[in-house]
Amino acid sequence: MTGIAFRSALLAAATLMLGAAKPLTTADVISQSTASDWRPLDPQQTLYLELPAGRVIIELAPQFAPKHVANILALVREGYFDGLAVMRVQDNYVVQWGDADNKREIRTAKKTLNAEFDRPAKGVPFTALPDPDTYAGQVGFSNGFAAARDSAGGTAWLAHCYGAVGAGRDTDASSGGGTELYAVIGHSPRHLDRNVTLVGRVVKGIELFSVLPRGTGNLGFYEKPGERVPLRSIRVAADVPEAERTPLEIFRTDTPAFTALIEARRTRTDEWFKYKVGRVELCNVPIPVREVPKR
Amino acid sequence: MTGIAFRSALLAAATLMLGAAKPLTTADVISQSTASDWRPLDPQQTLYLELPAGRVIIELAPQFAPKHVANILALVREGYFDGLAVMRVQDNYVVQWGDADNKREIRTAKKTLNAEFDRPAKGVPFTALPDPDTYAGQVGFSNGFAAARDSAGGTAWLAHCYGAVGAGRDTDASSGGGTELYAVIGHSPRHLDRNVTLVGRVVKGIELFSVLPRGTGNLGFYEKPGERVPLRSIRVAADVPEAERTPLEIFRTDTPAFTALIEARRTRTDEWFKYKVGRVELCNVPIPVREVPKR
Repeated sequence: MTGIAFRSALLAAATLMLGAAKPLTTADVISQSTASDWRPLDPQQTLYLELPAGRVIIELAPQFAPKHVANILALVREGYFDGLAVMRVQDNYVVQWGDADNKREIRTAKKTLNAEFDRPAKGVPFTALPDPDTYAGQVGFSNGFAAARDSAGGTAWLAHCYGAVGAGRDTDASSGGGTELYAVIGHSPRHLDRNVTLVGRVVKGIELFSVLPRGTGNLGFYEKPGERVPLRSIRVAADVPEAERTPLEIFRTDTPAFTALIEARRTRTDEWFKYKVGRVELCNVPIPVREVPKR
Repeated sequence: MTGIAFRSALLAAATLMLGAAKPLTTADVISQSTASDWRPLDPQQTLYLELPAGRVIIELAPQFAPKHVANILALVREGYFDGLAVMRVQDNYVVQWGDADNKREIRTAKKTLNAEFDRPAKGVPFTALPDPDTYAGQVGFSNGFAAARDSAGGTAWLAHCYGAVGAGRDTDASSGGGTELYAVIGHSPRHLDRNVTLVGRVVKGIELFSVLPRGTGNLGFYEKPGERVPLRSIRVAADVPEAERTPLEIFRTDTPAFTALIEARRTRTDEWFKYKVGRVELCNVPIPVREVPKR
């Protein structure tokens, strides 16, 4: 898609929404959105990670990492993570949680899986950004996830933006499997794209991770077991009684409203911005999340 | 500078350092560096910000914002900041400190200054990155700061990478002056480039900012005065007795060693990386800082 065609589509979308020429701000786009611009989180693909400070909610991305997601769901359902801990917090990089003492048994899930670093682009919905990216031929959004494609459009993969969740691994590409997970809490480490299997993203509660004390060991590992942050449990949302769930909706990324939101992020029309920018980098387009409104 | 020419220079630099063809890792570059690859912090352009949890060290950038830097030094020296507080912590964005109650008197410094959003590129040393950037025609490093230039090379400005420090302002472009300062604690908000006057960067202690509790008010402001984080003092390093200073050195950004470091960040040669990347985004090149070694 050329930049020019994209801009025409954007202008059409903006006009559609406003019936006028005034460009929208991000707040305008959200306030003018309709129910169909949002989708509920699928409770079968949503994890609740319970920290002492509260709940972190992760949306899984089975379309990009089906085997890892299935395995993580199996690990969660056998209680693998319950009582484990966050054992690594590296400033401007990641938090990581898992079995720091390497003692936990795995009953039904798998310990390792073949890497799912990328997948065929075919069949992946993709709303492209028109601006250049340092790391990939094309970047954009797929089903609510920041993603990338190569220039030829042959493969697609998830991008390491703030809040992205991945499966830690050792040197071997297929030494991960979901028993150790990490979330990005700093500037996007896009050099990890296609080097680790990303499995989803934090849609609520990332700040519970990002305020954790930084580990003073190598790579941000906590040096003493007492410093680790206990992980009470991870549950699949579908397995949690409905009254205890957190009902969330995600802004859809395949709508004219989302295209208008991209344009609002690209060109800053509010008066504070003296330089209107006219471009936006992938990880600077936050995908709105809200509590399900009472209807 | 074309990508190809740049790569040749990089290879020459790498060969120079090793006398061999093996590519260097970042750790190699640091361990092989010599004393002349580092420079001391200038105590006249260095601020010590004392939080309850410790010292945050900021290097000022007078070459980019001479009037703001002079004014901030004046504010610091009249004790303007002492006893004020961090009053805003917005997740994945900024911490901000200043006079939340708007009661502090300014004696000798100025309250507002004309914006210094950019400057003529002429006279600005610049080590360019060869990779595309979303926001600017050219990006690179100038005297230890992440910076950008327009494609024509007419103007240059500092970039909002993690740790960048800027002068908050109201809607008017020239309503800032250094009385309210902020530091980036999340993904680089590069849309702020040329919209705010950047005055320097945190070279040590950014994690003391980034772990602070997030404000629950609009834009991450703390809602209750009791939530604010006290700022004991800000001092110019030169005004602090030598025994109480933190002696730091910064990796120079105008040397073959730095060019080798860029290449080490661009192409990841260690075995863990299965996809070697071959590119790097401006804010993913950390500029090394170390304690002055005993000689």
